[in-house]
Amino acid sequence: MSSKVLEILNAKEAYQCWLQYKKIEDGRQYDEYASICLNLAVVGDSVILNSALQELIQAVTSMFDKEPLITNYADPDSSIILGTYQDINLTDYGVDASIMDRLNEEGYLLQTVNNGKRDCLLLVGKSDKGTLYATHHLLRLIQTGEAINDLTIVESPRNQIRMLNQWDNMDGSVERGYSGNSIFFDNNQITTDLERIKDYARLLSSVGINAISINNVNVWQVETNLITSKLLPEVANIADTFRRYGIKTFLSINFASPIELGDLTTADPLDQDVKKWWKDKVKEIYAHIPDFGGFVVKADSEHRPGPFSYDRDHADGSNMLAEALQPFDGIVVWRCFVYNCMQDWRDRSTDRARAAYDHFKPLDGKFHDNVILQVKNGPMDFQVREPISPMIGAMENTNQILEFQIAQEYLGQQKDLAFLIPMWKEVLDFDTYAKGEGSTVTAIVDGSLYDYKFSGIAAVSNIGNDINWTGNTLAQANLYGYGRLIWNPNLTAEEIAGEWVLATFGSDSTVLENITSMLLDSREIYENYTTPLGIGWMVNPNHHYGPNVDGYEYSRWGTYHFADRNGIGVDRTIETGTGYAGQYFSPNKKVYNSLEECPDELLLFFHHVPYTHKLKSGETVIQHYYNTHFKGVEQVENLIVKWTMLEDKIDEFRFNNVLDRLKMQLANAKEWRDQVNTYFYRKSGIADEKNRTIY
Amino acid sequence: MSSKVLEILNAKEAYQCWLQYKKIEDGRQYDEYASICLNLAVVGDSVILNSALQELIQAVTSMFDKEPLITNYADPDSSIILGTYQDINLTDYGVDASIMDRLNEEGYLLQTVNNGKRDCLLLVGKSDKGTLYATHHLLRLIQTGEAINDLTIVESPRNQIRMLNQWDNMDGSVERGYSGNSIFFDNNQITTDLERIKDYARLLSSVGINAISINNVNVWQVETNLITSKLLPEVANIADTFRRYGIKTFLSINFASPIELGDLTTADPLDQDVKKWWKDKVKEIYAHIPDFGGFVVKADSEHRPGPFSYDRDHADGSNMLAEALQPFDGIVVWRCFVYNCMQDWRDRSTDRARAAYDHFKPLDGKFHDNVILQVKNGPMDFQVREPISPMIGAMENTNQILEFQIAQEYLGQQKDLAFLIPMWKEVLDFDTYAKGEGSTVTAIVDGSLYDYKFSGIAAVSNIGNDINWTGNTLAQANLYGYGRLIWNPNLTAEEIAGEWVLATFGSDSTVLENITSMLLDSREIYENYTTPLGIGWMVNPNHHYGPNVDGYEYSRWGTYHFADRNGIGVDRTIETGTGYAGQYFSPNKKVYNSLEECPDELLLFFHHVPYTHKLKSGETVIQHYYNTHFKGVEQVENLIVKWTMLEDKIDEFRFNNVLDRLKMQLANAKEWRDQVNTYFYRKSGIADEKNRTIY
Repeated sequence: MSSKVLEILNAKEAYQCWLQYKKIEDGRQYDEYASICLNLAVVGDSVILNSALQELIQAVTSMFDKEPLITNYADPDSSIILGTYQDINLTDYGVDASIMDRLNEEGYLLQTVNNGKRDCLLLVGKSDKGTLYATHHLLRLIQTGEAINDLTIVESPRNQIRMLNQWDNMDGSVERGYSGNSIFFDNNQITTDLERIKDYARLLSSVGINAISINNVNVWQVETNLITSKLLPEVANIADTFRRYGIKTFLSINFASPIELGDLTTADPLDQDVKKWWKDKVKEIYAHIPDFGGFVVKADSEHRPGPFSYDRDHADGSNMLAEALQPFDGIVVWRCFVYNCMQDWRDRSTDRARAAYDHFKPLDGKFHDNVILQVKNGPMDFQVREPISPMIGAMENTNQILEFQIAQEYLGQQKDLAFLIPMWKEVLDFDTYAKGEGSTVTAIVDGSLYDYKFSGIAAVSNIGNDINWTGNTLAQANLYGYGRLIWNPNLTAEEIAGEWVLATFGSDSTVLENITSMLLDSREIYENYTTPLGIGWMVNPNHHYGPNVDGYEYSRWGTYHFADRNGIGVDRTIETGTGYAGQYFSPNKKVYNSLEECPDELLLFFHHVPYTHKLKSGETVIQHYYNTHFKGVEQVENLIVKWTMLEDKIDEFRFNNVLDRLKMQLANAKEWRDQVNTYFYRKSGIADEKNRTIY
Repeated sequence: MSSKVLEILNAKEAYQCWLQYKKIEDGRQYDEYASICLNLAVVGDSVILNSALQELIQAVTSMFDKEPLITNYADPDSSIILGTYQDINLTDYGVDASIMDRLNEEGYLLQTVNNGKRDCLLLVGKSDKGTLYATHHLLRLIQTGEAINDLTIVESPRNQIRMLNQWDNMDGSVERGYSGNSIFFDNNQITTDLERIKDYARLLSSVGINAISINNVNVWQVETNLITSKLLPEVANIADTFRRYGIKTFLSINFASPIELGDLTTADPLDQDVKKWWKDKVKEIYAHIPDFGGFVVKADSEHRPGPFSYDRDHADGSNMLAEALQPFDGIVVWRCFVYNCMQDWRDRSTDRARAAYDHFKPLDGKFHDNVILQVKNGPMDFQVREPISPMIGAMENTNQILEFQIAQEYLGQQKDLAFLIPMWKEVLDFDTYAKGEGSTVTAIVDGSLYDYKFSGIAAVSNIGNDINWTGNTLAQANLYGYGRLIWNPNLTAEEIAGEWVLATFGSDSTVLENITSMLLDSREIYENYTTPLGIGWMVNPNHHYGPNVDGYEYSRWGTYHFADRNGIGVDRTIETGTGYAGQYFSPNKKVYNSLEECPDELLLFFHHVPYTHKLKSGETVIQHYYNTHFKGVEQVENLIVKWTMLEDKIDEFRFNNVLDRLKMQLANAKEWRDQVNTYFYRKSGIADEKNRTIY
């Protein structure tokens, strides 16, 4: 056998992620599930229905070590019937068909009925996508050991667009990728390994992802060609694969494409030739991919081209593309990560945190209705703790999509453990007060608060061609959790973690308990040994792993802590600072602006304070820094203890994979602890109250 | 014409460096020189004599716009006669032949004699190399406008080995190169452009360089093959070219070659197979290059392989190679840049400055007599100010060669101006007291103090394939000055600068005055705006350009400043510090060890002091830092003023080339000023007495 095959065999569990479909060993459970799962009827026909059926066959065959009986019509022996409500007459089963009115296009019903001869489980989608999601819902119930003999589940996804952004380059590299290379591209070619793409699609559809952009938002020279007839047939192959799993394919485009592809001398969005060029281009794309999703655009950001070159604004730029896409129901996802990345560190009046709001807020209402502005969750860049971007909810008349980053760029790069769901929950639960109390981020991005035509959530993917997809096997939980959370923001982080552990590692109680607690504690731990109190950064420039307190302090990137011998923090108040706090709605504006009311965890984001400033906990800022940094390392040591307890309960590959990374994390945590403590001790001269070792 | 040719035409002066041979415009001077230079006799025959003749023909033809008459015997009309003393009978010209006894093999006589019919100038070498150097001496006199009608010059080089180390890689890159790519290698091939190599050889021989290693001391995979039969014929072509100019070719080798080239499983220097392997290898090399110089070796340094892997020491490693080279009179140049590059920054007991002495001193006397230890001038790594390496003079029974770096790695990278001759003069003039007063570095490296069999000076070259060789045209002065200084360490920096300006830019008095003063001030200026008082570093990691005060503070490289809110500096005293000061001979030991006696410019290298410590000037350390940093920027502005005055006096290419770099230097100096001042103001809290802008 080739070493590749051997690796896959050894790492089978790692590769399968949460779709383990392990043989059910418990006899009672086996009998109960088997009585329902081994006689399948699928009514109707579509590629998506077929994916649902195939998933069910694969899962059932694996879990019961038996092939199910399959019919393409419901008969009295059918124990599961799947299809859409158009093909399954609910009334025949005594179900009130009006139940389907409560569902959106992707919703579904899981309902136990009696067909006269026996109990039987209906998996009924509002569309075939709904049926696919219903199937995954059922399989999740089985994998997590829930009863399935008396179900009535009516469910729709809360968010309309549930998207992933791949930051994959055609040379095979992945920007901010920590899991090997791209599964889409290699050596400036599009992959021919559609099997891996299909497995990715299975994973994504199992958690409800319905959109994906497959190339990096920084579109370099080679990638600019993805929208040309030379490469579109191969893009179409990928889109075909995703389509079978209910996922629409998007491309990131280069705003300067008309020039770069050699056709025009301008990319001015108001130029008639440019408009025509894009209209023709879009037509060409849709000829290859009839359900193409649209474009993701990073323009006038970090040196990427955009409408500014022609004295046009973001509305001009995005609307031009939107007009081209409109006839095909395509959309433009226009990123708001726009700021001055050539800032002079001496200039204290410019505040990067203000930039997105300052750029985009004045344009509210000027965007076409198939343009969506994509806004990062925080105003800076995916730090371990940031306030919510004041952009979210600020634009009543402009579609918005929220951007998360599953890739742990600033959160340990999938060496260190950081389960991101609790952090994202905080974001979604945050009340912006945009339309008074209750204007949560969830209500904004699900489109309900302002009745957006398009909205939802996107995230930078964390996968690569590593055999386990995510470098650190535990980072699979973030991909899983992302999908689950944006499907249903009411799920708790605990529920999601528990589901994932059960599906991924099985039901051993120590495994469940230890891994769940490791996940749930991990973001706080990471915050403890890195940058508590909301200040962020202090990382090594460029690659962003490991501590470097002054790493960005004298740089062009607008990311400063302003620590001096007396204190630390960025004054973003209205009266004496950059005024950033004023971008929030009341009362958030007042809370953040006030030294007394500002929550401790964001204190240094909004205020410059002396090291001796007392936190609400009673600790001084400096002592809090010492305490959290010592504690963080101890907590990592505890993670290792918890993981080591699982040695005999987890396959060798996954056990060692995580253990290796925990050891790297410990080394990293110690480096953070010592550098940060030493830096601030040297600067403040204030000793640790507990007299622990500072260098 | 091709753009390459056009570039060369526009940049002819830049390319020619100090071998301009401009037409002599002054009529009186023209006549005087022409009366001597237009009738040449060359007696004897060798490739080197031929190079001397060709240089003379080229120069004379260019300066007088006339081709000289050439004979291969002295006749009554000969006005210049060149050859060796074996071929020119001095007594025939009334010269006491015993004068040649005062010369070493590379020495020469320039003597005006009367042959009965006319005055005639003898250029007589002790060997043909001497004749070549005599020729260049004559040409230098003409280019600098000196009289040549009544000469009696008897001259030998002070140092035996006068070497350049190219840090060129076969992919064409140059490690720490700031002047384009390699002239030796491109795309993993050896160059076929021997014309450029020849021009380099001309430049080098004109200043007396007699040895060169052509590949990087870090010998990577491809370069390991330079000593194989596949590449040796091409190396031989390069060696042939250099040989014509009296320059021996060396190669840097990979200590693990026997393994890397696939022949053995060990590189253990005491293994018989390894010994035989190297003996055979050396034989093979000499079959291609009969006068091959030998090996340059970086072993057990910065992750390069070496004898430590086999529990052997540096003597074992170098002696094994020396034995292989000995039958062919080859030598081993073994670098002493050995230290722990994986130091934990928390570990204050390890001191990189101590490393070379600690490693090598105990091995004194154990090295074969064709091994030379190559020692960097300072104990760290070519900082703008370091004490002399205590290794120099510490090993009475071991040949030593001093290593300078002409490439301005830490001195502005040939963007910023830094004329290095004054710094090297300080090194050479330094009294080590190794054998009591008068034990200067010069007396050690010229071999006289300890009667070394081999000794001299090597330097890392600063050239590349830029049209002007050195990026910044003014950096040519460092290559010129290096050769001149090591030929004759008694030359002053002023003399060398003056010579170089005259030969390079001609004799306009403003040009001479401005450029000479720019050069002579430049190192102090660079020191002012970077790291005065001997602390060094504070640069951006990896590439080493621009400020980053904490850039190396928490790194593995052993390069720290230990600045805290109270003070700065490294305690290297015997009593409370690392003990490094104790590595010097008395009284240097005592001077450096004493806070009172330690010279200000090295204060922070040896002592950790409060910011309020008073320097001998009366300034506090912190105020000195502010003052020098403000002053440094003003001085750079003044450099620009001085250069701008020369706009009409210098060809456009060279004028703009330097002006562009001076502008970069000004930006760099401001960044240094502001980052350093801000860093220390924030840390110390001590305001500038003059209340200038600190951020």
